[in-house]
Amino acid sequence: MNSPQQILFSNDIPASLGALLSDMEPAGVFVVTDTNVERIVLPGLGLDCPVIAIPPGDSHKDLSSLSAVWERLVELGANRRSVIVNIGGGVVTDLGGFAAATFKRGLRFVNVPTTLLSAVDAAVGGKTGINFCGLKNEVGAFAPAAGVVISASTFSTLPPAELLSGYAEMIKHALLSSAEDYAGILAFSPLEGDEDRLLGLLSSSVNVKRRIVAEDPSERGLRRALNLGHTVGHAFESLALAGRSPLPHGHAVAAGLVAELVMSHLHKGFPTSLIYPLRDFIKDNGYMLPAFSCDDYPRLLALMSHDKKNEKAGSINFTLLSAPGEASIDCNFGPDEVSPALDIYRDLME
Amino acid sequence: MNSPQQILFSNDIPASLGALLSDMEPAGVFVVTDTNVERIVLPGLGLDCPVIAIPPGDSHKDLSSLSAVWERLVELGANRRSVIVNIGGGVVTDLGGFAAATFKRGLRFVNVPTTLLSAVDAAVGGKTGINFCGLKNEVGAFAPAAGVVISASTFSTLPPAELLSGYAEMIKHALLSSAEDYAGILAFSPLEGDEDRLLGLLSSSVNVKRRIVAEDPSERGLRRALNLGHTVGHAFESLALAGRSPLPHGHAVAAGLVAELVMSHLHKGFPTSLIYPLRDFIKDNGYMLPAFSCDDYPRLLALMSHDKKNEKAGSINFTLLSAPGEASIDCNFGPDEVSPALDIYRDLME
Repeated sequence: MNSPQQILFSNDIPASLGALLSDMEPAGVFVVTDTNVERIVLPGLGLDCPVIAIPPGDSHKDLSSLSAVWERLVELGANRRSVIVNIGGGVVTDLGGFAAATFKRGLRFVNVPTTLLSAVDAAVGGKTGINFCGLKNEVGAFAPAAGVVISASTFSTLPPAELLSGYAEMIKHALLSSAEDYAGILAFSPLEGDEDRLLGLLSSSVNVKRRIVAEDPSERGLRRALNLGHTVGHAFESLALAGRSPLPHGHAVAAGLVAELVMSHLHKGFPTSLIYPLRDFIKDNGYMLPAFSCDDYPRLLALMSHDKKNEKAGSINFTLLSAPGEASIDCNFGPDEVSPALDIYRDLME
Repeated sequence: MNSPQQILFSNDIPASLGALLSDMEPAGVFVVTDTNVERIVLPGLGLDCPVIAIPPGDSHKDLSSLSAVWERLVELGANRRSVIVNIGGGVVTDLGGFAAATFKRGLRFVNVPTTLLSAVDAAVGGKTGINFCGLKNEVGAFAPAAGVVISASTFSTLPPAELLSGYAEMIKHALLSSAEDYAGILAFSPLEGDEDRLLGLLSSSVNVKRRIVAEDPSERGLRRALNLGHTVGHAFESLALAGRSPLPHGHAVAAGLVAELVMSHLHKGFPTSLIYPLRDFIKDNGYMLPAFSCDDYPRLLALMSHDKKNEKAGSINFTLLSAPGEASIDCNFGPDEVSPALDIYRDLME
């Protein structure tokens, strides 16, 4: 499990996957995917190996699907020298990675993310797992994929809202990287359909995450910087879900990034001149935005204080920036100190 | 997960466990055990923390018990800074260790083995897991306990057959260590009830395993030496189970050790003068022995070739010794080459 992870960026999945697998000399290859990806993506890849398909969607990222994957691996005779190839979005790479990491105490696995969100977020970094008792990723393991093939070639079948969702995480990585990366990411739109340029940006973006994860694989310190935008973003997401008008994860994160850049401005001097371009990007590309008024503040602030990243009761934990690339983790504030940023966020986005 | 493992040898469990836990500064402590140990051992430990008890026995080392432990951890509010203390035999340390290693992607855990077999074998080395689809330890993880308290003070309630079972693994470790350790281990009997001397021998024995595991944590090479006695031992165990007269694991291993020392003599020159003392020890202490005749050879040899440690079809993989402390792993033989050793084993044991 401790060999270095190989990440290939390529719009030719079959060639890259073939190269990765032939280096690994597997005793057998087994694909884990979902039934949508099996129908839409797999025929184009020309793979010749057994396929284990789970039902699509986050509600199936559960113990019952996990147990079904383990059972099929037993039936198919997978052994310690077999390799699992997870092809799909975050549900497939998280669940398939966990199944591989625990079958016979650990098979090697390769991830082939087919959505922008999983390419930029879920496929690298070694977090695997399932939802349990209604809690997201409550059970899992830190287990890095032996290899990852990152490609933009499967994105053409994705709806625009899903591309925008994944792109929000790329904006976050650019903010954690440098002013140049941040300007570069806002100068492109994933809706343009330029797979080659998108792949280039993805490559920089994934490498930002990879550097951070390499310094802190089990999330004890620096890796929390990746939580940028997510303290407020998760609260927006939960509020929308409770109001029965769900907001896709990355859309909530995009709005959360604006709110946390406002916090960064108020407490760390992040320049406002770098907040407007993000606001404009979000509006121009048609991101879905959270609907809330000041009546919702108590609820939103309570959601933020209950986030699992908080270790101090009653306070809210943020990653803030003094400038792009200059992050401070573990900035703690009381709910009263967060309300003004929500006011400014609403002014900005109106 | 990568901090060094602390192993304390002590016949005062409460003091040692208290010292281990206070070093770890846990946000909360949760005990995983089985209902027998809960009734017999826990009252004497004076612990003041929530207890999660699974039903006793290997048949409950399954997904349903694992899921029940995860559920209780959710209900009890365990978080990433909590510590799980597994108190029990190998079923509890294997399952509780796996539950801890996967809850919220990994809590720290401490093992307190209460049987001789788990003290010498299951509590050190980082193998955790459950049985799945009728296969032993089919699902699990390599996850070392942060700490282990090894004590002989709980053994007085164990039946003699169980003490002998655990002692067979200590004989194996002594054979892998040195002629002195081998002579020392045969000069004592676990049935004598001398807890302090047993603890001293346990300490040497566990350290033999620890050294081997440290050099090969994920069982790619050297660690297979720990399979000594188990190729034939597992076959004896399975044959007895199929004949509905189950043989406890360590009793099968003791017989397996004799058979594999005979193989070692035939192929590596292991001195016969060092086989007789083991034969005498087994007979004098009343180990249960496998009942078989030459009619059972085909079945026994087939069981050996299907052992999961075999990677070459049709051949049988052994660890053999040229002398105590001098092991060769991956010695492969065809079934025909193993039959003569079974003949000699039967002559010796009659």
